[in-house]
Amino acid sequence: MLLAAATAQADEGQWQPYQLPQLKSELKRIGITIPAEKLADLSRHPMSAIVSLGGCSASFVSDAGLVVTNHHCAYGAIQRNSTPEHNYIANGFLAKTRAEELAGGPNTLVYVTDKVENVTSRVLKQTTPAMSGKQRNEAVEKAVKALIAECESDKIYRCSVPAFHRGLEYYRIRQMMIRDVRLVYAPANAIGDFGGDIDNYEWPRHVGDYSFLRAYVGKDGRPADPSPDNVPYHSKDFLVVSATGLKNGDPVLLAGYPGRTSRYKLPSEIRYARDAAYPAKASEIQSDLDVIAASTKDSAASAVRYASVVKSLNNVMKKTRGLMDGFARKDVAAIKDVQDAEFRAWYGKQSGVSPTMLAELDAVIAADIALSDEEFGLSVAGTGDLLKSGATLYRLAQEGAKPDAERETGYQQRDLAFIKARLNRLEQSYVGAVDQARFTAALQRYARLPKSMHVTGLDALLPAVDAVPALYAQSQLGDTAKRIAWVGKDAAAIGASDDAFLKLAVKLDGVTQALKERRKELDGNLERVIPQYMAAVIAWKKSQGKPVYPDANSTLRVTYGTVSPYSPKDGIVKGPFTTIEGIVEKNTGKEPFNAPDKLLSAIKAKRYGQFKDPVLGTVPVDFLTSADTTGGNSGSAVMNGKGELIGLNFDSTYESITKDWYFDTDITRAIHLDIRYMLWVMAEVDHADNLLKEMTIKYPAAKK
Amino acid sequence: MLLAAATAQADEGQWQPYQLPQLKSELKRIGITIPAEKLADLSRHPMSAIVSLGGCSASFVSDAGLVVTNHHCAYGAIQRNSTPEHNYIANGFLAKTRAEELAGGPNTLVYVTDKVENVTSRVLKQTTPAMSGKQRNEAVEKAVKALIAECESDKIYRCSVPAFHRGLEYYRIRQMMIRDVRLVYAPANAIGDFGGDIDNYEWPRHVGDYSFLRAYVGKDGRPADPSPDNVPYHSKDFLVVSATGLKNGDPVLLAGYPGRTSRYKLPSEIRYARDAAYPAKASEIQSDLDVIAASTKDSAASAVRYASVVKSLNNVMKKTRGLMDGFARKDVAAIKDVQDAEFRAWYGKQSGVSPTMLAELDAVIAADIALSDEEFGLSVAGTGDLLKSGATLYRLAQEGAKPDAERETGYQQRDLAFIKARLNRLEQSYVGAVDQARFTAALQRYARLPKSMHVTGLDALLPAVDAVPALYAQSQLGDTAKRIAWVGKDAAAIGASDDAFLKLAVKLDGVTQALKERRKELDGNLERVIPQYMAAVIAWKKSQGKPVYPDANSTLRVTYGTVSPYSPKDGIVKGPFTTIEGIVEKNTGKEPFNAPDKLLSAIKAKRYGQFKDPVLGTVPVDFLTSADTTGGNSGSAVMNGKGELIGLNFDSTYESITKDWYFDTDITRAIHLDIRYMLWVMAEVDHADNLLKEMTIKYPAAKK
Repeated sequence: MLLAAATAQADEGQWQPYQLPQLKSELKRIGITIPAEKLADLSRHPMSAIVSLGGCSASFVSDAGLVVTNHHCAYGAIQRNSTPEHNYIANGFLAKTRAEELAGGPNTLVYVTDKVENVTSRVLKQTTPAMSGKQRNEAVEKAVKALIAECESDKIYRCSVPAFHRGLEYYRIRQMMIRDVRLVYAPANAIGDFGGDIDNYEWPRHVGDYSFLRAYVGKDGRPADPSPDNVPYHSKDFLVVSATGLKNGDPVLLAGYPGRTSRYKLPSEIRYARDAAYPAKASEIQSDLDVIAASTKDSAASAVRYASVVKSLNNVMKKTRGLMDGFARKDVAAIKDVQDAEFRAWYGKQSGVSPTMLAELDAVIAADIALSDEEFGLSVAGTGDLLKSGATLYRLAQEGAKPDAERETGYQQRDLAFIKARLNRLEQSYVGAVDQARFTAALQRYARLPKSMHVTGLDALLPAVDAVPALYAQSQLGDTAKRIAWVGKDAAAIGASDDAFLKLAVKLDGVTQALKERRKELDGNLERVIPQYMAAVIAWKKSQGKPVYPDANSTLRVTYGTVSPYSPKDGIVKGPFTTIEGIVEKNTGKEPFNAPDKLLSAIKAKRYGQFKDPVLGTVPVDFLTSADTTGGNSGSAVMNGKGELIGLNFDSTYESITKDWYFDTDITRAIHLDIRYMLWVMAEVDHADNLLKEMTIKYPAAKK
Repeated sequence: MLLAAATAQADEGQWQPYQLPQLKSELKRIGITIPAEKLADLSRHPMSAIVSLGGCSASFVSDAGLVVTNHHCAYGAIQRNSTPEHNYIANGFLAKTRAEELAGGPNTLVYVTDKVENVTSRVLKQTTPAMSGKQRNEAVEKAVKALIAECESDKIYRCSVPAFHRGLEYYRIRQMMIRDVRLVYAPANAIGDFGGDIDNYEWPRHVGDYSFLRAYVGKDGRPADPSPDNVPYHSKDFLVVSATGLKNGDPVLLAGYPGRTSRYKLPSEIRYARDAAYPAKASEIQSDLDVIAASTKDSAASAVRYASVVKSLNNVMKKTRGLMDGFARKDVAAIKDVQDAEFRAWYGKQSGVSPTMLAELDAVIAADIALSDEEFGLSVAGTGDLLKSGATLYRLAQEGAKPDAERETGYQQRDLAFIKARLNRLEQSYVGAVDQARFTAALQRYARLPKSMHVTGLDALLPAVDAVPALYAQSQLGDTAKRIAWVGKDAAAIGASDDAFLKLAVKLDGVTQALKERRKELDGNLERVIPQYMAAVIAWKKSQGKPVYPDANSTLRVTYGTVSPYSPKDGIVKGPFTTIEGIVEKNTGKEPFNAPDKLLSAIKAKRYGQFKDPVLGTVPVDFLTSADTTGGNSGSAVMNGKGELIGLNFDSTYESITKDWYFDTDITRAIHLDIRYMLWVMAEVDHADNLLKEMTIKYPAAKK
């Protein structure tokens, strides 16, 4: 019975909201009572309450712009306001009044998606079958830029035209970008990041990964630069928070902005990732981590500066290891072989289809794999922040000389503020000696890479290892003010500079641009063939009565599933819930297992308030569902069948990591915060009564 | 629901069979349908089918003396018959006819308990209140020896008079000792010991820990020395084997010979064990293991000789660590504090009880703790097989000079064969250089022990470390023939020997004997006070309507429980079943995870036969129950409510290890082999059709 319970329904799918009506019977089967048509309408509840933070997901929980998301998504805003005197990271922060709310800083943004249009025909209008890959790629890019510029004519919008199914369709997404976003409440780090990196991707989990922000706009109701005169955004739609709880088997809906998946890759691409790309990446990251560790070990100050770099590399490392372990555990390529063979057999029997499409597909994928090898090589050789800064500055100067519409994506006028912010932020995570050690070691590793990973034309241009110290001695790009001063300078000025890393960047630019040109040619070819392939796959699935969702591309998606445990190994069942008693069990008093005393004493005193689960007999903390998520879904609203907020997504289990390639129903589980834990901490530990009052909360009928 | 399921009923208790009628309603509640009165009668089914192997438990499964037990309990018999040509350990062994059955050797014995008498009054008859501890201890020992001698007047019996509740009661146990026991069938080691030491005490578990022996007797039906003329023992009672299966929550009965528990210790004794004895023991064993590793690392032959020593030390180490971890996880001493305080309060209110008993108890326990420290010190200094052999030989010579009834227990005529066997067996696990390294290191460790652990009078007699090489050079006890030749020599001869270890043994004998005398004095005092204490505890429990079972003492006991999972950590549930698919999952191809190909292919082909569990959808391997077991219960019959054999006990989980001190209902779980896995391997893998036919097996009604 226990093992049987671990097998959930197949809840694969990150659906575009408009697709949901096709899934009506599925939604009904698991117990979702909101009509699918309503879920498909972005202007209506609950979807109009779902927002993006750019990389994270979130939702409105009051009509005064109050936003709930993950603690790790609001981390930048918390960190920015923390000082040794007011250590909001360690101690948490609670604004008891709106006046006490703190500026989130330029990277804390709220994006409200308000319009999604299918613009496929406009994007593809200028493409012709005769075009080269590069021509096609540039024609698409030009059309996309024009569509974005048109959309962004009102400066309150940030627009994008992402490809779906690699170019079968294009949608223009219009998002109102709110740029005065303030920190309202964050629990202590030992609650919001309890378990830290150690527990990352793990279950059991006991983290209260939530924080609150508030969106502010000008008095006219339109996004405005941060100002004391701004007023809370009137979020006419928001999610009702339900403390009535949920139990094993209950349905959930999850809405957010998943980043990237690779569910429609060919078996050859899986084999390349499994056998070559991931092992190379893991080895590269581990080496870089080792270099950072060695070169910061004698300086606490250096170690602190690289802490976030290390954290992020460790996260990628754990994910990459998870992918490798997952592929070793389950032969996903073999499963895809079967599907691929079935598809090809079906395709061969269709009339009026291109007889060469599959051969073209295989050829262009093989070329993509070869080019990916060189791109990996470039990324190895390009390790080192001074070189990266130099390259960015020189490219910016080159692109700046062109009319805005012709500039490379990422170097347009609209990107300037982000580039400057990045060059500025480096201040916080740069130490010359460490960067020099990383760059030196990276050059040595690049030299040892297999021939296929060496970039055409690059090797002769790279400095010798013993010339590296001189490069650092002769560059001032490590100085933030001097680095920023180059922004806006033209290419001639940079070309004339005797700064060693600007000189190196100029020297390497030709090779990197040539690689980019080859990428454009290849992408153009991929975008020509893959949409044909995907259209055939969709037709094939349709012939089986199955709708097809596109790979994640950071656009708004809806997924559904049920609360369910899983069996990582024969004889063991994990989840679906953890409880606050588990915090005491895990607590060692040492970071990251150092829950605050006030939390521990509330648990020991069994002050469960209204948040005691009738089955568990205590307050739940985190739980597992079979919903289909990926990076970018952090902070996503987890709703019950009625569309009420019952949790926040924040992670998935280690065994689930391969889901980016293949959704294995038996073991794929997303990890969510149970909203009752958040409410319990707010009520019993942090006394965030003002926010509890501001939100609309449904409490269980029988109070205790 | 999952977490709730992990909380089983409190199934604590290793009951003497005669006590079962007191537990009638409990047995009925969990679903045991055999009348308690029937279970209490050792001469009736099913108890008369339960046997001991001396250290392990087993049961008859046919009327022709066929015995089923654990693979690890029959290991000696398998090993003894294995040769490089016929590697029965690696390949398993199956006698297709009785003629093919192999001699189990002198250590493979079957004990059939046929009589249990309460002899308390006879044991205590000569004791008087005025006696010293030593006098009392000797009076008891004398009475016990006489009772044993009387019972063993018929040489087919081996008798014992163990104390229950440390001397509140004595029972004389008469066991028919069958000494011609043959190996019938053992699966390959990679089935019978799948997971090996790595999986020891762990869950999930996938071991087929079973083997078959057969008891042979003379043509007159009486035990006889091994002979081709012997005939299978007519085991008129035997267990019916049920392949009808069991599921989560089902009741089980378990009968066997648990070795030793400490459930009635005082809080002070728990604190001594937790804070002093176990840490010292763990450190000592680890050091000894390190010395063995270092001194065998350059010789594969030496490593092989010490493999079983290392295995056994590792096992003790893991158990000791488990005890330490368990005590760290749960403050058992604090729980006992509460119980102890409640008891003392109750006791204080009783009329007619000894006003000094509790103070005497505390004093004698304190003395016991102090003496235990010295005994531990002696065990450290006494590491080394040559010194142990010398000490045994000298003691044997000393005791041999006395009339048999006056000899120290363990050195009587009846023990001679066992002593010789031990001195002989040393041949297999002794290398001079390794023993010298162990003894040297042990002397150094002894020197560093705290003062309380130094044995009175010993230090001056121990050799200096640099004198050790000469000891080994001047001793011939490492030569098995020469070692054995000393058996039967008198003390004068040994005293005159110039063998260095005999000389050292003679030199140390006075000190070790003095320690034994102090132990006798103390034991006499313990046996005077503790029975009064236990009688009071029993009366106290009786006043609450609760029966009390005695600590385990290697006598026949019955325990019951239910199939149930447990939660080792918040958010994780383990068990209750594993399945054959888990073997494939764990299999690495490398020992100890190297299941035979024929097993793996049967699993992959889903050849489940009649052994598919309807809930699991496959064949179960091992399972967990809440039954109360300990060392000695290995091989114990696990029966369903009707008394049919449905499993074999073989281990308990790591979290359960502290159960020897305190039975924690939430986490204590015994690990059993599901008999369906055994039958499945016999039917589908090993084709042991002759044995399947010989047993009486109930198959599920609906065959597939």
